[in-house]
Amino acid sequence: MLSETDQSVALLPASRVLVIGAGLIGTSIALALTAGGHQVHLRDRTSSHGLVAASLGAGTVDEPDEVDLVVVAVPPAATAAVVVQALEQFLDATVTDVASVKAPILADVRDCGADQRRYVGSHPMAGSHRSGPLTARADLFVDRTWVVAAGPQADPASVAQVEAVARLCGSRVEIMDPVEHDLAVAEVSHVPQIVSSLMAANLVDVDPAHLQLAGQGVRDVTRVAASDPGMWTQIIMANRSAIRSRLVRLRGQLDEVVDHLDRPAAVTGLMTQGVHGTKLLPGKHGRTPLDYVDVVVEIPDSPGALARLFADVGRAGVNVEDLSIDHDVRREVGYISIAVEQTKAAALGQAMVDAGWSLRL
Amino acid sequence: MLSETDQSVALLPASRVLVIGAGLIGTSIALALTAGGHQVHLRDRTSSHGLVAASLGAGTVDEPDEVDLVVVAVPPAATAAVVVQALEQFLDATVTDVASVKAPILADVRDCGADQRRYVGSHPMAGSHRSGPLTARADLFVDRTWVVAAGPQADPASVAQVEAVARLCGSRVEIMDPVEHDLAVAEVSHVPQIVSSLMAANLVDVDPAHLQLAGQGVRDVTRVAASDPGMWTQIIMANRSAIRSRLVRLRGQLDEVVDHLDRPAAVTGLMTQGVHGTKLLPGKHGRTPLDYVDVVVEIPDSPGALARLFADVGRAGVNVEDLSIDHDVRREVGYISIAVEQTKAAALGQAMVDAGWSLRL
Repeated sequence: MLSETDQSVALLPASRVLVIGAGLIGTSIALALTAGGHQVHLRDRTSSHGLVAASLGAGTVDEPDEVDLVVVAVPPAATAAVVVQALEQFLDATVTDVASVKAPILADVRDCGADQRRYVGSHPMAGSHRSGPLTARADLFVDRTWVVAAGPQADPASVAQVEAVARLCGSRVEIMDPVEHDLAVAEVSHVPQIVSSLMAANLVDVDPAHLQLAGQGVRDVTRVAASDPGMWTQIIMANRSAIRSRLVRLRGQLDEVVDHLDRPAAVTGLMTQGVHGTKLLPGKHGRTPLDYVDVVVEIPDSPGALARLFADVGRAGVNVEDLSIDHDVRREVGYISIAVEQTKAAALGQAMVDAGWSLRL
Repeated sequence: MLSETDQSVALLPASRVLVIGAGLIGTSIALALTAGGHQVHLRDRTSSHGLVAASLGAGTVDEPDEVDLVVVAVPPAATAAVVVQALEQFLDATVTDVASVKAPILADVRDCGADQRRYVGSHPMAGSHRSGPLTARADLFVDRTWVVAAGPQADPASVAQVEAVARLCGSRVEIMDPVEHDLAVAEVSHVPQIVSSLMAANLVDVDPAHLQLAGQGVRDVTRVAASDPGMWTQIIMANRSAIRSRLVRLRGQLDEVVDHLDRPAAVTGLMTQGVHGTKLLPGKHGRTPLDYVDVVVEIPDSPGALARLFADVGRAGVNVEDLSIDHDVRREVGYISIAVEQTKAAALGQAMVDAGWSLRL
């Protein structure tokens, strides 16, 4: 069960922190900790990364004698070994990490005989397609979810320390069991990633002339397949047992679709379940998803057009719930879809027409 | 092979046209034909639809004695029978239809012994989640692709007539073999739709607490799964043989993923193929897709914010290639991702900061 923790948990007392891994995530946490008045040491296998992070004000590259907390922010595949090493080097420190899969790291800590009381895994759910210390920001985690996934042996004081770091970074803390966390991210992140990659990989041998008929649907389905294969391989390998069980389920459902493609009721059943599934994803601001309506406006492909358009949208006093641009493949024009509440669509459409825009229904 | 036709093909001479099916598509074509000076008759099983379309200026509900052209714009499952009936009722008329699957209709025309010389299938690639004559517009097809999929027996004069209708509606005409068209839409539209529905259906039994960890990836993959199940069942049933062969392929690839989930090289191979696939989709304006970079700006959730934002983007003189809004689930704030060419990202980011916006990296 996922639950938000008591916001009154004590703040992190002035601490000495070692951040191992001065990439985007590690350096961002180090910047936030330094800004919060903590003494931060930085360690990175690539010494220039540590030096760059230090030059940004994230801390010092001097090795500490003792620390209260170690934050391990290295690539997923290297995380468990670095966590174990840190637990062994600093015998009084709490150690946390930021990898997006939690149970295997806890298992490695246990299997190595390291101190499970002082290890508290975490998963700050923010990131970027950029990497390296130069892309770091103290506010990277503001308003993001930060899952704290402590094992059963974890010392409550260590859990509180990690929660305090997350809160210092501006995140919302969610406490989850590590195994449950891994199942959740398999379901809502890792399996969708694999499905998107499968669909995109399937396009590789499609006749380029056929690809000319591609519309917005296939673009949406395959968008996340453009992500970094190396990083995703590490994540998938780490979480493969949770992923496998969901993928096997999905394969069973695909088998049924293939086997019953001649039965309209089976096809309708799948599509109807799909519609239901889309409605279960949490809506904007945690509200129940409303049935938004798209108002589609033709926009010339010039720098000032969007500014004029949104000035007119603003004058209509309508709140924009979502946006997308659909480009015409061969003409220098685009269509922008403005999703608004159903009750506002007619008014916005009229306001756009009155302001001289062309609507596409 | 898909090819654009000669734009110098003769315009449609003044004609008598019967449009069967006064929904969004039929009424939109009728409006364009009427505006082009043709005499349009409307027929709909639901008589009020015909009357509404006529009241919009789309034509008359009087039954014609003779016509030069019949446009069949009824639901996919009913199309073939209505086409055959039209070929038999009007012995000198060319008959076209607008269904999104072409080979089965041609096969039905042939199997019924109807005149294949006068049947020319077409697929105008526009639509809407709205339906009914009230949503129709004469410019619905402007700049959209309109596939003309004539069978081997089709009379060149009939093909020219249908091409002329498409061009009158403002569409770009693509000539494709019906079987090839159906394979193409299976590949780039129908299979992605099924994959999206499968993924979304898979969410139905996920713990709601786990769904709280959903990010943009799963939303993108499942977006098109929100489409109308009834319409999609008809499309999938009509094209199931082309769909089946691609789905079986996809199932084989999924089997491989499941079987080799312990092998990092296999996982990396899939993800890398996926990245390759995403790059094959035609880019904006038919150019090779560039590597766009997202500049992510925090926006307050208020009507005027987007107007101010795009005024500032406009002043930066940067062309916006794509847009998306990523909402924070529990806070009244959103993040807008502005995709721009790589060489422009730094300048836009700086301009946004200078104008007082907060960037998210």
